[in-house]
Amino acid sequence: MRISQLSAASGVPIPTIKYYLREGLLPAGEQTSATRAEYGARHVRRLRLVRALLEVGRLPIAAIRAVLKAVDDETLSMHHVLGTAHYAIAPAIEPHPDAEAWHAARSEADRLIADLGWQVDAHAPTRDELAQVILTLDRLGMPTTGEALRPYAETAMELVTEHEIGTIPLDRTREEAVEALIIGTVVHGRALDVLRRLAQESASARIFGTRAGGADRGPDATP
Amino acid sequence: MRISQLSAASGVPIPTIKYYLREGLLPAGEQTSATRAEYGARHVRRLRLVRALLEVGRLPIAAIRAVLKAVDDETLSMHHVLGTAHYAIAPAIEPHPDAEAWHAARSEADRLIADLGWQVDAHAPTRDELAQVILTLDRLGMPTTGEALRPYAETAMELVTEHEIGTIPLDRTREEAVEALIIGTVVHGRALDVLRRLAQESASARIFGTRAGGADRGPDATP
Repeated sequence: MRISQLSAASGVPIPTIKYYLREGLLPAGEQTSATRAEYGARHVRRLRLVRALLEVGRLPIAAIRAVLKAVDDETLSMHHVLGTAHYAIAPAIEPHPDAEAWHAARSEADRLIADLGWQVDAHAPTRDELAQVILTLDRLGMPTTGEALRPYAETAMELVTEHEIGTIPLDRTREEAVEALIIGTVVHGRALDVLRRLAQESASARIFGTRAGGADRGPDATP
Repeated sequence: MRISQLSAASGVPIPTIKYYLREGLLPAGEQTSATRAEYGARHVRRLRLVRALLEVGRLPIAAIRAVLKAVDDETLSMHHVLGTAHYAIAPAIEPHPDAEAWHAARSEADRLIADLGWQVDAHAPTRDELAQVILTLDRLGMPTTGEALRPYAETAMELVTEHEIGTIPLDRTREEAVEALIIGTVVHGRALDVLRRLAQESASARIFGTRAGGADRGPDATP
């Protein structure tokens, strides 16, 4: 197909497609004449993935290149490709000024992961994210031991094994698997966060509510 | 106690305390002389709450005032106070340009909440957050029906009823209840998100990993 048809098939405007081609996020089409290139299904797939990495994962171009490089390197295992995408979407953690407190929180995070028996790389940035949460809880005088976080860990693993990991389409292309992982991780993560707050309101209405339906609400709730 | 002792007891610097007093986030102490005011335990509690709203909830001063007003209004039910705090920490949702798509997503969100039998106020901003997630999934060609989100909804409600709502200290002051809600909602929400991504890596290592321990990882994971 021509670039105009690729644009129609993918819903990505032609100027954006040309930008991706310049940035090397999309492989060049097959040059059929000096002024014409032919694109195929893999270009449509790649465009979907780039959109997901950009709009859902909010990744910088450099990180997207790294993910695409892993997707294209057939010598890499699926676990490596998913890991590359996974780490690329993990928020960067600024090191905490108090080195001692940070070290303690990081050790607590490592201990929790070890106690859970989870297979997490020793250099996973997610370990630092967990340490940061533990540090915040500690500063607020909340319990930070594994026991306090275990219910969240068990809930998370149950969700992943029963509803998430199985939905990654491994029978199709690596692009599709990575796209599914990005969308699943980011958007379903947002869904879980929102639904949890909705569940909290509902539970609060049942337990503390004066009227059913929660008509008795905060100011910004009233029309 | 004097303002210096209040600062020591709360860990909040004196200039910050004076700023809170000016902004009306902290009630004035009892004036014992022209130059001296006496502060008590309620000031320490209020300072903890203001810190939680500012640092954990990242609330603007105006929103903090609204929450404190609800905390102080003894005629309001606990559900109203918690709701006020809850809505204050909910991220603002920018209306989607495509009015028709937005309306459809919002209807889908309302339908899911109704199907779950949850008691959520008709004007809860959280309904718009859920609509936004549904719209994003839809744009990405992912299933958005209640069925696709139900596992997340059930997981969320299970977590809330079994581990969260019961931990709000209702036997103590309203300040403490709201503080616990803010911390629980924001920080434990972050904990759940991080632990879910850790669980995904572990599950991926078990299922797709070429080596145990996930040593075969993405580039930014290697030391």
